[in-house]
Amino acid sequence: MPQPFIILIPIYQGLTQLDFTGPYQFFCDLPNVDIKVASIGGQPVTVEGFSFADLSVLEEITHCDLLCVPGGNCTNAIENSDFIAAIKRLGQGARYITSVCTGSLILAAAGLLKGKRAACHWAWREKLALFGATPDAGRVVKDGNIITGGGVTAGMDFALVVIAEMVGEDSARAIQLRLEYSPEPPFHSGNPETAPKAVRDKVAQKLSQQVTEKSPVLECAARHLSID
Amino acid sequence: MPQPFIILIPIYQGLTQLDFTGPYQFFCDLPNVDIKVASIGGQPVTVEGFSFADLSVLEEITHCDLLCVPGGNCTNAIENSDFIAAIKRLGQGARYITSVCTGSLILAAAGLLKGKRAACHWAWREKLALFGATPDAGRVVKDGNIITGGGVTAGMDFALVVIAEMVGEDSARAIQLRLEYSPEPPFHSGNPETAPKAVRDKVAQKLSQQVTEKSPVLECAARHLSID
Repeated sequence: MPQPFIILIPIYQGLTQLDFTGPYQFFCDLPNVDIKVASIGGQPVTVEGFSFADLSVLEEITHCDLLCVPGGNCTNAIENSDFIAAIKRLGQGARYITSVCTGSLILAAAGLLKGKRAACHWAWREKLALFGATPDAGRVVKDGNIITGGGVTAGMDFALVVIAEMVGEDSARAIQLRLEYSPEPPFHSGNPETAPKAVRDKVAQKLSQQVTEKSPVLECAARHLSID
Repeated sequence: MPQPFIILIPIYQGLTQLDFTGPYQFFCDLPNVDIKVASIGGQPVTVEGFSFADLSVLEEITHCDLLCVPGGNCTNAIENSDFIAAIKRLGQGARYITSVCTGSLILAAAGLLKGKRAACHWAWREKLALFGATPDAGRVVKDGNIITGGGVTAGMDFALVVIAEMVGEDSARAIQLRLEYSPEPPFHSGNPETAPKAVRDKVAQKLSQQVTEKSPVLECAARHLSID
């Protein structure tokens, strides 16, 4: 039996849990993988109603084959220098560097996306440019060994692309069938282009405020990166 | 402020975590909800790589407005008489009785689906008939106050249907936009009708074995139900 393929998912307070629990479910069906979900100090990560516990200690992990960084309140992760140092170190040694949603901003702040195209949540996407990355509106974007997914639920499409890359399309199709991934959204409102104007304006205004509030953190991280 | 709307998600060892973490992410965006994730004794539920902890104690919860039962190795839950008693008690008092994937078999084993139509994972769906329910191949199935989703990833479509029912379509559309739910599966293999034959045959054979192995538990539960 060859060494298991190590998939590392680093998590943090304020993450959007579906960014990782979605791809996680798809990765779980792969043979001979070791999936580590890790946090700084192995500390539990809480969301409303429960915690993620029994996590690996991020700083103690020496290597992974695939790094998958989820999004959410990404500036919490970006402001934590230990977290960013671990992402940089583990990303540099990984075969695949990946993210879902605003996880790409975390990869970018770790200096892993300079000159690369990447996906991100639609409301945050343009901020990738601060770090020398090229924002791409694709649902899943591949640039060399970097594979990034768009907002939250893009994690499922992303997982299938990653799995096809790792072990081939038929294995991805088999997992898709097991997880019955034949989406039928009851509404057409999943991105700013398809959402009704009133819905789009309301959501965009709210998210735009959040992005504006957090922009100084991103700008500071970008300055720090260019000094490194 | 009115009393919060209580959403209860009972979990158990062997569940498929995405069955609940998917809808959970959508429900989290609702105003004035109290989402409780509960297990027998409040015990942690482990999956590969982490645990769900800080759970509510299922037996101590007196009421919920929406009961949402995830699937997975559903016979683990069905064989636990305390779990099934709690599902029956809480379902009878709930405004909405819901499930994702084989969670509908758990609702059925609790006697909550007699004479009702329900969705389920495609490989397990026909087993609903053991409990007097009518298997329905729909992605999301509504029958009165019972709303059930198909296999695993159907939980996202299910959540939007439930949210539209609870608070209206525009709220559902706003959440869909925030979570960027505009799926683009890279392959067409999400159900037995669309999967390539070789993929379908392999997956169906494997799942059919699992269903056959677990059938005695379902048959026993069905006999028990008709005696009640």
